[in-house]
Amino acid sequence: MELIPQSEFQRARKLDDLALLGDMCRANALVAVKRAGSGHLGSSFSAMDIVVHLFYRELNTADVGFDDPDRDVYFSSKGHDVPGLYAVLHSLGVIPAEQLLKLRRLGGLDGHPDVGVPGIEANSGSLGMGISKGRGMAWAKRFLGRDGRVVVMTGDGELQEGQNFEGLQAAAAHAQGNLCVIVDRNELQSDKPTDEILTLGDLEAKLRAFGWHVASCDGHDHEALAGAFAEFRSAADMPKALVANTIKGKGVSFMEHPRALEEGGGTYRWHAGAPDDESFARAHQELADRIRTRLPDVRLVRVDELDEQSEGEPESGIATHARVTAEYVAAAYGEALLELADAHPELVVLDADLASDCRIRPFELAHPERFHESGIAEQDMVSAAAGMARQGLLPVVNSFAAFLTARANEQIYNQTSEQTKVIYALHYAGLIPAGPGKSHQSIRDVSLLAALPNMTVLQPGNADETKALLRWAVEDATENVALRLAIGPSPRRLELPSVGPGRGAVVHEGSEALLFAYGPVMLHEALTAAERLDERVQVVNLPWLNRVDAGWLTDLVEPFEEIFVLEDHAPVGALADTLRRELGGRRITVFGVEGWPACGTPTEALRHHGVDGLSVADRIALVLGARAAS
Amino acid sequence: MELIPQSEFQRARKLDDLALLGDMCRANALVAVKRAGSGHLGSSFSAMDIVVHLFYRELNTADVGFDDPDRDVYFSSKGHDVPGLYAVLHSLGVIPAEQLLKLRRLGGLDGHPDVGVPGIEANSGSLGMGISKGRGMAWAKRFLGRDGRVVVMTGDGELQEGQNFEGLQAAAAHAQGNLCVIVDRNELQSDKPTDEILTLGDLEAKLRAFGWHVASCDGHDHEALAGAFAEFRSAADMPKALVANTIKGKGVSFMEHPRALEEGGGTYRWHAGAPDDESFARAHQELADRIRTRLPDVRLVRVDELDEQSEGEPESGIATHARVTAEYVAAAYGEALLELADAHPELVVLDADLASDCRIRPFELAHPERFHESGIAEQDMVSAAAGMARQGLLPVVNSFAAFLTARANEQIYNQTSEQTKVIYALHYAGLIPAGPGKSHQSIRDVSLLAALPNMTVLQPGNADETKALLRWAVEDATENVALRLAIGPSPRRLELPSVGPGRGAVVHEGSEALLFAYGPVMLHEALTAAERLDERVQVVNLPWLNRVDAGWLTDLVEPFEEIFVLEDHAPVGALADTLRRELGGRRITVFGVEGWPACGTPTEALRHHGVDGLSVADRIALVLGARAAS
Repeated sequence: MELIPQSEFQRARKLDDLALLGDMCRANALVAVKRAGSGHLGSSFSAMDIVVHLFYRELNTADVGFDDPDRDVYFSSKGHDVPGLYAVLHSLGVIPAEQLLKLRRLGGLDGHPDVGVPGIEANSGSLGMGISKGRGMAWAKRFLGRDGRVVVMTGDGELQEGQNFEGLQAAAAHAQGNLCVIVDRNELQSDKPTDEILTLGDLEAKLRAFGWHVASCDGHDHEALAGAFAEFRSAADMPKALVANTIKGKGVSFMEHPRALEEGGGTYRWHAGAPDDESFARAHQELADRIRTRLPDVRLVRVDELDEQSEGEPESGIATHARVTAEYVAAAYGEALLELADAHPELVVLDADLASDCRIRPFELAHPERFHESGIAEQDMVSAAAGMARQGLLPVVNSFAAFLTARANEQIYNQTSEQTKVIYALHYAGLIPAGPGKSHQSIRDVSLLAALPNMTVLQPGNADETKALLRWAVEDATENVALRLAIGPSPRRLELPSVGPGRGAVVHEGSEALLFAYGPVMLHEALTAAERLDERVQVVNLPWLNRVDAGWLTDLVEPFEEIFVLEDHAPVGALADTLRRELGGRRITVFGVEGWPACGTPTEALRHHGVDGLSVADRIALVLGARAAS
Repeated sequence: MELIPQSEFQRARKLDDLALLGDMCRANALVAVKRAGSGHLGSSFSAMDIVVHLFYRELNTADVGFDDPDRDVYFSSKGHDVPGLYAVLHSLGVIPAEQLLKLRRLGGLDGHPDVGVPGIEANSGSLGMGISKGRGMAWAKRFLGRDGRVVVMTGDGELQEGQNFEGLQAAAAHAQGNLCVIVDRNELQSDKPTDEILTLGDLEAKLRAFGWHVASCDGHDHEALAGAFAEFRSAADMPKALVANTIKGKGVSFMEHPRALEEGGGTYRWHAGAPDDESFARAHQELADRIRTRLPDVRLVRVDELDEQSEGEPESGIATHARVTAEYVAAAYGEALLELADAHPELVVLDADLASDCRIRPFELAHPERFHESGIAEQDMVSAAAGMARQGLLPVVNSFAAFLTARANEQIYNQTSEQTKVIYALHYAGLIPAGPGKSHQSIRDVSLLAALPNMTVLQPGNADETKALLRWAVEDATENVALRLAIGPSPRRLELPSVGPGRGAVVHEGSEALLFAYGPVMLHEALTAAERLDERVQVVNLPWLNRVDAGWLTDLVEPFEEIFVLEDHAPVGALADTLRRELGGRRITVFGVEGWPACGTPTEALRHHGVDGLSVADRIALVLGARAAS
C-alpha cells in the first residue's frame, strides 16, 4: 500500500492542474479508507474536485492558515465525505501522513469531522445541521467585522432534513451574503438514488423560493466552478447556493454512478465501507495510471515506511473481540419482523434512509405496501408514525439510536402523549463500532427516553433474545417500546435463558459481587471480566433497562456484598440509575462510557473508557480488595 | 358572563349563515378564555371562519360522527387556536357547555389539543409536527382502504419550523392526494408580524416548489373557501395546500390586525392571555350586537347557571400559591443579561420567537446588533449558536425548556461536542403554569441534558439567585450551562444565602429529615410542607441539579435519618438521581411529577401530582411515621 507524499503535491501544484490534484487526493483517501477498514469513498470522490478547487483556488486558507480570524471557513455538513477532506488537508501539509494513516483509530483522525483535527472547522456527521452552523459563523464574522466567507458543503439526500430549510430561510432573512452553500448533487443517497428514496423535486426552484441566489454547474469542471464563484461575487447581499452536479464515486470507473448502480443491481455498493483487496488494487491502479499521464515520475511511499509504529490490537491475556461471531442481532430483528408480519397485518415499518443498515430491506421487499420511506427526516418519520398509530396501525420506526432519540425527541414525546403504541428500533446503540465517531455512537439514548411515562427501553443480548423481545413488543406490550440494537457482530455466542418482563438471568455464577450487563458487546466484556475473577462475580443479563421486577431484583441482590453495572451507555441515565431507584440503600458502582465516546477500533474504544473485560476485572478487583481490607 | 347554548346553534344552522355561526363561536370562545384566565384569541379568531366552514360545510364528521373510520379528520397543528375549535365542537354538540367552561382546568379542556377530548384528533401545541402527523394519518387511510380526507391547519409563523418541509416533501413524494393543509395566513406570530420576525418570502412559490397543489383565498369568505375546496377535488393525486389570507383577531374590531398592531405600538396584544374585564365586555358586546343583526332573538345563558359547581381554589389550612409575589425570575434574568452586556461584548442573545416571554426584549432594544432572531426554528437557533461560538462569541440561547431541550437535543449534543461554550436559557421549566398543558410543561429537560459530559444544569429559586447564577454562567463557567427558569410569578419571597458552585443552603431548619428542593415553585411547596411539620424537616435549596460538591453533600446529609427530594420534574433523571449517584448506600425518597403533567390551575396540578406542600407534608409524615414504628 502506497501513499503520495506531501512533497509530490507541492510539485504537482506548480502544474496548476487541479484535476491531477484531485486524483492524487483520491488515491490517498482510498488508501486511508482501505487501511481504516471503513469510510465513505463514494461521496468523498464526488465532492473531491470541489474541495480541491476550494482549497487550491478559491479559499484563502492556504495563504493565511487555519488560525487567522479573517480566513475563509469551509466545512462539510454531510461529514462522511471527510476522508476526501483529510486527503486534501494532507496535500496542503496541514495533516501529516502518519495521521492520515490513522483514520478511525484512537488518537488519529475521527471517522466524522471533529474540530480537534487541524483544518476541521465544525463537527458534523449527523446530517442537516451545516447550513445553520455555517450561517452562525457567517453572522459572527459580520458582527465581529471579520473578513472571509463561510462555505458549507451539503449532500443532496441530506437536504431531506428539515433543519436545512430553517437555515436557508434564516440566512435569506438575515441577508447573509458571506455564506455559500454547495450541494454535492450526486443523485445517490446511502445505497439508492435520491429519486427512489424521496425525490427532492426541482431543487433549484426550492432554493430560489427560499430567497437564495442559485447557480449550478458541473462539479468536476474547474472552469465551470471558477465561473460560478466569480458570478457569486456579484450577488453581494444574498446567500449563495451552488448546485454542483457530480458523479458519485467519480474517478474510479467501477465506482462511478450510474455504472456502479447498474452493476449493483440497483444498489450502490461504494457509499460506505472499505473496498475488498482486489477492488482496492484495481481502483488504486486506475488512479495511479491516470496520475502518471500528467505527472509521469510521481513518487509513492510505502505505507509501512510512514507508520509511526505497529498498530495491531494490544496483546493481552484475553483478547476482547477475538471471537467475533457471525451473529448480528440486527439481522435477527429483521428476520423477526418478517416472521411477525403475517399474523399482524397492522404492523408497518418506517425508514429514514437506513433500510440496509437497519436490516429492514427484506421486509420492504416482502411487503412493499407496508414499508414507508420518509427519507433522511427522522422528525417527519416519527410524527408520521404517530398519525398512523392514531389510525390503528402499529408502526415500527427505524433509525440509528443517536439520530432517532435526539433529533426526534420532542416528536416521540408528542406521540407517546397520544396514548398510542409505537415501537422504536434504535439501531447502532452503544459505543461499538467506534470508528464513525461521536456523531454516530449512541451513549445517551436511554437517558433521552427515560422520563417518558409509557416507554419501555430494552436491549437484547443475542439473536434469540432479540426475536423474543420484539415479539413481546408487538404482541404483549401495551405501551411504547424502544429496542436498542447493536449494529455489529456479536463478540461471542451466548446462551441466554428466557425470562419474564422486568427480569434478567444469571449467565455466570459467582459469590461475592453481582455484575449487571446487557447487549452483546457488554455481556461479552462482563463475562470476560468474570472469567478473570474466577467465581467471585456473578453476571446477570438484564435487558430491561428502565422497568425492573422489584421482587425479583430484591431477592437477586440480597446475598451479594457489592453490585456493579456495566453500561453500554453513559454512566448517567441508564440501567444503573434504574437499579438505584429500585434498590434504595444499596451502593451501586457503575462502569459506563464517561466523557465523549472515543473513536477507534472496538478494543481501543473499550479500553479507553475502561469498559473492556480486563479493565472491568481490574476495577471490580479494586473495589472488592478495598472492601476486604476495610 | 353569558354563553350561547348549543340549541341556538341548531337554530342558526337552519339559516345557512356560516358567518353568523362563526361569530357565535367567537363569542363562546371569548367567554371560555376569559373564564380560564388565559388562551389564544387572536388566532382562534383568524382561523374561526375556516373551522366553521370545514365542520358545517366541508367535512363529513357532523354526519358520521367522530368514531367512524371513514370520517374526515381535521386538526390544527398550531394547537393554540384550540379555544376556537372547542367552541365549534360545542356548537355541534360534541363538547357540553359545562366542559367548555372548564378550559384549562383539571378534568376540563386542555390548554392545547389532547386526544382525550372528544373531537380532538391529534395532540399538538409544540409547532411544526402537524403536516407529518396528518400525512401519516392520510397514508394509513389509503393503506387501510378508508374513506375521508385529512385536513391540517397550520399557522404561517409555524412554517418556520423545518419539520414542515420534511412533511411537505414526503407527502408530495408519496402522492398523498387525500391530504390537505390550510395555512392560516394571518401574518402575525406571537407578538410581531411574521415579516419582522423572519419572513416566509413567497410562501406559495415555496409550497409549489415542494410539489403541492396550491390555492389561496380570503379565509373569511365562505364562497371563496367553497371554491377552493371544489377546485382541490380536481387535483386528485397531489397533496393540496390552501393559503387562507386571514385577519388575526377577526371579528372584534380592536383585536383585528393591522389596527390592533398599530394601537399596540408595533406589538400585537391579543395573541395570548385573557382580555381584561373592560376589553372582554367591549368585545363580547360587539360580537353579540352583530349576532343579533342576524339572529335577533338569540338566547344567551348565564354562565353560573351552566356551571356544575363552584370551582374555586380548595379551601385548606395553608393555601398554596396564596401569597403570589411580584417577583419573576425570568424578569431578573432579562435584567441580568442587560447588566452583563457592557462588560461582555462577546455575549449575544438568540431567540426563536419568544422574546417577550423570555424577557429578552429589553436586550434586543438595547443591543439590536447583538440580538439574533431565528424565528420558530429551535434547531437552527442552536446550530447557529454553535457556529457563533466557534467564532469566539458567547451565545445565550432562549426558548421554552420543553421545546429547546427536546426539539434541538441533537443540535445541543453536536454543539457541546465542539468544546465551545453556550448558555441555554430554559424558560417555562417545570410543572407550573399548568394551564397550557403537556406540550408546554417541561418535566423532562434535566434528563435530556443529563448525559452530556460538559453541561451544568441549574435552577435558581429567586431573582437574586437568578442574577448570581447567570453571572457565574457568563463569567466563571468553563463549559456549557443550562439555566432552568420558572416563567410565572414566585409564590413567595425567599431569602437564599449565596453559596459556591455545587452547593446549596439551608432555608428551613429541622432535625429528622432533609428535604431538597429548587426553583421558586417547589421551594415554596417544600417550605409549606416543612412549616406543617414543625422542626422535623430541614429544607435545602440546591440549584445545582447535576453537579454537586460531594464533600459538602456528605457532611450535610450525615446527621439525618431520611432524605427527600421534591422535583419540579419527572422523578426520573433530575436532582434525586444526581444525589443517589453521590450518596451510594443512602435511601432517597423522591416526590416528582409522575405520569403526564396535569393541565389545570397551579393548585390543581400540584395537588394532582401530590407535590403541593400539604401533600408533601403528608407523604413525609408517612415515611417518618413508618420509620418510627419500625
